Amino acid sequence: MTTLRYVIGVDLGGTKISVGSMPTDGSAVLVHHLEPTLAEDSADGVTSRIAAAIEKVIAQTITLTGATRADFLGVGLGAPGPLDREKGLVIVAPNLGWQNYPLRDKITELTGLPATLDNDANCATVGEWWIGAAKGGRNVVGVTIGTGIGGGLIFDGKLYHGSSDVAGEIGHTTIDPTGRRCKCGNYGCLEAYASGPAIAVRAREALEGGEPSALLVMAGGDLSRITAQTVYECAKTGDRIASEVVRETARFIGTGIANLLNVFNPDVVVLAGGVAQAGEDLFGPLRAEVKRRAFKPAVDACRIVAGTLGGQAGLVGAVSTFLSQHPE
Amino acid sequence: MTTLRYVIGVDLGGTKISVGSMPTDGSAVLVHHLEPTLAEDSADGVTSRIAAAIEKVIAQTITLTGATRADFLGVGLGAPGPLDREKGLVIVAPNLGWQNYPLRDKITELTGLPATLDNDANCATVGEWWIGAAKGGRNVVGVTIGTGIGGGLIFDGKLYHGSSDVAGEIGHTTIDPTGRRCKCGNYGCLEAYASGPAIAVRAREALEGGEPSALLVMAGGDLSRITAQTVYECAKTGDRIASEVVRETARFIGTGIANLLNVFNPDVVVLAGGVAQAGEDLFGPLRAEVKRRAFKPAVDACRIVAGTLGGQAGLVGAVSTFLSQHPE
Repeated sequence: MTTLRYVIGVDLGGTKISVGSMPTDGSAVLVHHLEPTLAEDSADGVTSRIAAAIEKVIAQTITLTGATRADFLGVGLGAPGPLDREKGLVIVAPNLGWQNYPLRDKITELTGLPATLDNDANCATVGEWWIGAAKGGRNVVGVTIGTGIGGGLIFDGKLYHGSSDVAGEIGHTTIDPTGRRCKCGNYGCLEAYASGPAIAVRAREALEGGEPSALLVMAGGDLSRITAQTVYECAKTGDRIASEVVRETARFIGTGIANLLNVFNPDVVVLAGGVAQAGEDLFGPLRAEVKRRAFKPAVDACRIVAGTLGGQAGLVGAVSTFLSQHPE
Repeated sequence: MTTLRYVIGVDLGGTKISVGSMPTDGSAVLVHHLEPTLAEDSADGVTSRIAAAIEKVIAQTITLTGATRADFLGVGLGAPGPLDREKGLVIVAPNLGWQNYPLRDKITELTGLPATLDNDANCATVGEWWIGAAKGGRNVVGVTIGTGIGGGLIFDGKLYHGSSDVAGEIGHTTIDPTGRRCKCGNYGCLEAYASGPAIAVRAREALEGGEPSALLVMAGGDLSRITAQTVYECAKTGDRIASEVVRETARFIGTGIANLLNVFNPDVVVLAGGVAQAGEDLFGPLRAEVKRRAFKPAVDACRIVAGTLGGQAGLVGAVSTFLSQHPE
């Protein structure tokens, strides 16, 4: 009998720390632990909590499976970029206030386990590719839509990092050169139209005309409480304004994805993050927009799908990237 | 003493057939032959003339070098896409009126030499990467600007074709979602603004205000004779309208290239085709636009250069792609 071995995956986000254990065959996330990031905490503080969460997940996995600590091969870390993967540094993480922080080695120091570090959007893409919606793809574009819009690229079956490790910034492609100012300084970036906060802003703008909408009711009359999630849920009730905001969102994302199809000719585009829950209200018009804009051979070659791993995509991908660097 | 061996490169375009011989070490194009494509000719007619040109180039190379026919390993073909590389077919070539034409095998039949077929823009990119302006790059984006705008992608030192061989259609990325209609059916494609004919159209539009411009003089008073080349040459004289058209062109191309930088994070972007002759009038504002729009780590990692092989880039790359499939 072959004994299973395990890897811990960590997805460090601006708001949440997600830690889980997986057997190396990728069959399941066995134990999943979630806690707030607490951005006011120091880098060392956050890292200590990550290490504690890792120990907790290991202990629970041992209880669950009868494994021993020696069966845990290491830790795959996903973190917001830019990163220095080789040195295991988080170069800058604006939401966390980190600079040149040696996350990988700190985790090894605290847990005694080898660790790897990669970009969070890369990890989410690899996760969906390994065991999720993009499984079997050879050329995969992952688009992660949340507070920002990130991306991951798999070319010819291999995660692509680019020349200075910053490839995949799909949210910062211009879809309207004279359009909305983006936080990155550029104008008309996809992120400025279709990130979670941008969707909420557009919904608030749409309500300014005074047309009645369930959106306002769902937000308890407080415009500032409208989120992308509110908009998606409200659109499902048939609300006109919410539906129009979702359709516009689909057109913006569709324009960005059509560009990616014409340039990369991928076989899978997977949308991960909260957007995956928007369902056909979003994916229907999104696919139509892509079809309208991209070349037929590129459209025919590609399926555009919602991620199936939800909030676990990042940690699953972190496990996979660990394994690709530490083959059993 | 090692005897040199030779490969013939062919670049089949809508207007020109370019055929040349190179030693396998890539040191030079020894003999270069150019003739018009004559689109009114049949596919077999064009192919016969290509084969005759190949024989002529082989004969002249033998005279020049003292090689024998046995020293010629084969023929690399570059042709407009879409192609079926595996079967050696030109699937559709609108400018030539070809459909599912077995170009590769016809050439082998007529010359007795093994042949390979790849996309013309891929070949131009590979040519500049092998011995031209993109030499030494690991992740290279080639942009070919002429009648249309094409592209080639080299990732991690390998030419990337995508999932159905249509990757690299950089000219058909949207830079303005509600902008000019493109021949491809989409709106606001880069090609609709910055291809040779699109530059000429914008120059004619700019003249409609009636402001005096040397452009009109250079075109002999006939607006329809204005080409992108006229515009570039006229801008060099300081003409206000021509200069403004070139600066706008730089902004359009810069917007497209900034997107590529944020997504691919290449170390080289090489612009091939007539645009290479536009010089700093174009490249200055183009680099500025990229710097304004793309992320600093992506800008810092990348040089944006004009191709150095001119009209020979395609045939040089065709030789290189032949060699990559038939190593000596």
